[in-house]
Amino acid sequence: MAEYQYQTRILVAVDCILFGFDGEQIQLLLIKRGFEPMKHQWSLMGGFVQPDESTDDAANRILKQLTGLEGIYLEQLHTFSSPDRDPIERTVSIAYFALIDIKQYQQQLTDQFQAAWFPMQDIPTLIFDHDQMVKMARQRLRYKAASHPVLFELLPQKFTLPVLQHLFEDVYDTQFDKGNFSRKMLSTGLLLKQTDKDKGSSKKGAFYYKLDKKNYKKNF
Amino acid sequence: MAEYQYQTRILVAVDCILFGFDGEQIQLLLIKRGFEPMKHQWSLMGGFVQPDESTDDAANRILKQLTGLEGIYLEQLHTFSSPDRDPIERTVSIAYFALIDIKQYQQQLTDQFQAAWFPMQDIPTLIFDHDQMVKMARQRLRYKAASHPVLFELLPQKFTLPVLQHLFEDVYDTQFDKGNFSRKMLSTGLLLKQTDKDKGSSKKGAFYYKLDKKNYKKNF
Repeated sequence: MAEYQYQTRILVAVDCILFGFDGEQIQLLLIKRGFEPMKHQWSLMGGFVQPDESTDDAANRILKQLTGLEGIYLEQLHTFSSPDRDPIERTVSIAYFALIDIKQYQQQLTDQFQAAWFPMQDIPTLIFDHDQMVKMARQRLRYKAASHPVLFELLPQKFTLPVLQHLFEDVYDTQFDKGNFSRKMLSTGLLLKQTDKDKGSSKKGAFYYKLDKKNYKKNF
Repeated sequence: MAEYQYQTRILVAVDCILFGFDGEQIQLLLIKRGFEPMKHQWSLMGGFVQPDESTDDAANRILKQLTGLEGIYLEQLHTFSSPDRDPIERTVSIAYFALIDIKQYQQQLTDQFQAAWFPMQDIPTLIFDHDQMVKMARQRLRYKAASHPVLFELLPQKFTLPVLQHLFEDVYDTQFDKGNFSRKMLSTGLLLKQTDKDKGSSKKGAFYYKLDKKNYKKNF
């Protein structure tokens, strides 16, 4: 087995990109790194893969250890392997991501853990290549949103057009014109206008809409 | 840096899944493994990641070393990390894949290398979890074929309906009814019937078609 003998063994880690949706906006979960280098800086939830676990196992274990969250389906995103991505020692990192309903997991995410949600417009600078990981995860999220009703599945039963617009702006990282956005959304025939309004966010109020589920399923 | 010190370093490898298209069918490139364990058995093109290279670098280097092929855009597919996937020593493997035009690379793939193309219906048993890697790469290929004109881009300028049908059967790993397939394909409005026939594969011959590129681009 000489071919194995002279090879270099490498540190293997996982990093978890967790997007949370609270019915109104998408946020990113971050923690303050607990050890050097870059201790106390904002980071994705990461750690090293142990001898007896797959990277899937490691991602689930680490997410639970650092945030208390469990039972989340983490999807493998991409492996990051630039030789100098970790300044202390070469580490290959397998990035995982998920989009969850924040409310559903609120109880698990107690103050005991140092994790915090950040709105997409307000993400701090992250350690190593974690910015790049988040960027790729956002791309994947867009891709998923275009091919799968994941976003609508996490929306509350009724929602206003401004909420829907903010959501799409978070996902596509852009601003939409209000009039155009409303016109396009309504023209899909997927939204059912309700008779009641949300009066919390403006004086005039905004009508609630529901998803026309029959029409929606047919289209996906 | 105590957190680094006590971690286990792991062998990291790459494996390359190369699909080739010759204008008629999709084939998989395999080599006979050159070292123990499982020496001389059919395998994907794989090897260990070196200290100074990313996994992208490693995939390109290894593909060139084992097959002579270079300048191919390899896409990262998935990382396979089951602790017992390699019987000699734990190895995490990052799988890469590409779909190429066989003819374009024919000169690079000389007899000097022990690589061979296998039709999709005729793939031998592969070592380790390579079957699983190929299965996942085929799924990705389907996904890409549905969202991107990659298959049509590799088709010759004119082709017959039987060729098109075989191609779709390779990709989707299923059999289509000839009548249904032709009807559906023609109903897309993407195919332009030519006046000449391919008489090589049947007495009656099969009309050639060309892709209506204007219509096609509009649809993708």
